[in-house]
Amino acid sequence: MYRLAFIGFGNVGRALALLLMRKEQELRDRYGIRFLATGIYTARHGWAINPQGIDLAQAVECVQNGDRLDALCDPAYREKVVNSFDFIRACPADVLFENTPVNHVNGEPAVTHVRLALQHHMHALTANKGAVVYGYQELKRLAEQQGRSFFFESTVMDGAPIFSLFREALPAANLRAFRGILNSTTNLILTRMEEQGETFEQAVRYAQQIGIAETDPSADVDGWDAAIKVAALVTVLMGYPLRPQEVEREGIRGITPDKIAEAQAEGKRWKLLCQAERNGSGVIARVMPQKVGPETPFYTVRGTTSIVEFQTDVLGDLSIIETDPGPQTTAYGLLSDFVNAVTRA
Amino acid sequence: MYRLAFIGFGNVGRALALLLMRKEQELRDRYGIRFLATGIYTARHGWAINPQGIDLAQAVECVQNGDRLDALCDPAYREKVVNSFDFIRACPADVLFENTPVNHVNGEPAVTHVRLALQHHMHALTANKGAVVYGYQELKRLAEQQGRSFFFESTVMDGAPIFSLFREALPAANLRAFRGILNSTTNLILTRMEEQGETFEQAVRYAQQIGIAETDPSADVDGWDAAIKVAALVTVLMGYPLRPQEVEREGIRGITPDKIAEAQAEGKRWKLLCQAERNGSGVIARVMPQKVGPETPFYTVRGTTSIVEFQTDVLGDLSIIETDPGPQTTAYGLLSDFVNAVTRA
Repeated sequence: MYRLAFIGFGNVGRALALLLMRKEQELRDRYGIRFLATGIYTARHGWAINPQGIDLAQAVECVQNGDRLDALCDPAYREKVVNSFDFIRACPADVLFENTPVNHVNGEPAVTHVRLALQHHMHALTANKGAVVYGYQELKRLAEQQGRSFFFESTVMDGAPIFSLFREALPAANLRAFRGILNSTTNLILTRMEEQGETFEQAVRYAQQIGIAETDPSADVDGWDAAIKVAALVTVLMGYPLRPQEVEREGIRGITPDKIAEAQAEGKRWKLLCQAERNGSGVIARVMPQKVGPETPFYTVRGTTSIVEFQTDVLGDLSIIETDPGPQTTAYGLLSDFVNAVTRA
Repeated sequence: MYRLAFIGFGNVGRALALLLMRKEQELRDRYGIRFLATGIYTARHGWAINPQGIDLAQAVECVQNGDRLDALCDPAYREKVVNSFDFIRACPADVLFENTPVNHVNGEPAVTHVRLALQHHMHALTANKGAVVYGYQELKRLAEQQGRSFFFESTVMDGAPIFSLFREALPAANLRAFRGILNSTTNLILTRMEEQGETFEQAVRYAQQIGIAETDPSADVDGWDAAIKVAALVTVLMGYPLRPQEVEREGIRGITPDKIAEAQAEGKRWKLLCQAERNGSGVIARVMPQKVGPETPFYTVRGTTSIVEFQTDVLGDLSIIETDPGPQTTAYGLLSDFVNAVTRA
């Protein structure tokens, strides 16, 4: 019986709870995995710890109704927790699902959450890129020392298998270079400008209306989200610690309707391409708008769909395309991390 | 120290030997895997068994020069082997790489080779689709009983991770449907007809000249190779035993230059699409030429490149594209099977 703790119970955290409920019997039948939620910590809806188990359906409903989780807490734990760090120390759990918002500057508090979880002998599973980019080397070493897993499949391309692909399905392969479209918001904006003839501002507004873009869209449109994903891939898959600030970066604010039309006249489309390649003992990485034609699969990657193309020393280019991701697919990445962590252990 | 036996030492077998030599140190350093070739059996170049080890470089050179392998054989084994079955019984080995030509009718002798290898406590790794389509249920059960692996990553899309993806990187995912372009020869023929304006016959001749199509191209152009791959995917990934004969099948002989031009006028391209989907308790599968437009990644899959798009219960559509496969990439699929087999055991 694995005891599960959750930090962050927003769209992804709740989608994970629902997915765990949907897959409960399958996990038991196929993998012999049983689980019990013992703790949930949120920034705005309080928290609960209960070693006897928290009803996930009730917790999801509670948060969706705007209520606080406190009523689900075992009274014995009421006084023990002031912040998320206390929560990890106090919660009797074997697995921590960390789903706090990404901090692009230093990865906190996710790095500390993962560190604390590993120190308390939990598997630390996160959808938070900050923890990977700012903590990978240390946290991976700590996980090995503790005999636990630090997994983060959902940090790049949601639930599509990227890190587990290289960890398990591509043994003895060395990554030389990759290219990708890794930021859904900018790709949706570019697609709207092309297909609906919208201006950049109109397309941003549309992306905000459907909940894809943030109120301040700069992390996406200036290429920061893409750069942090590039840094995560380079750090983990190329074994070369790279900070997002070291990724050469240009966003899509300069892509005008005129430029879109010009590309269309050439039979091409603008894409915010992510690229990295080994260069001697280093790695050169960049995020930059580029025109692509129908000779590459990048051309067909529309809207929120994403793609990555890997160049290795053992195969021709290998591309992965994930269509229409959402909180459910991010949640699946976390579920797959959970299964992989406990079946390897 | 893993002792390796090879049946079949053609383009793929030799590419595997060269890849093993290239990766020897990496396998030792990253996985602690050491190996020694102890047997090679060929249809036209004789065979050799030597418990002290066969020099793979020498064996490759020998076969490439058109010589027989007999000189590399330990004299103590000379009289023990009349056929490939004797070879498996006699060869002291932990792993068999089975690379005989595909038999579309009953999968032999590959099925028997795999069965014998497992009975003799070897991991059985094959690039032969016949063994999967005609033996999967039995051979998988036998492998489990023997505590050995029966792996066949190279049977569909060469070295691209397909079976290992579902086995390891996509836990608790259920495959509902898939679509793909899985036969390189027909895709190359269609691409030549589109881009070079060749007739079907000219394109077939080109594919034969560069060594992609067989002298009798019917297994490819009539869709049999695609159908057997569909049957393998359905059998393994959907858990539904399907014979190639049960796949509704239409090849590309009916695709005329006129039809190509007509599709181009619509902004589309003809592709030999493979499809399967669950239908109640069964599976409906077909191979059929279809027109695809630039809204799908199939449109950009040109020449010998291949693609498969998976529809599961946990992700949006997930596509894998493998560019420019060849004997080296098929060899990598076998190498990855080897690493996965011995690191799981």
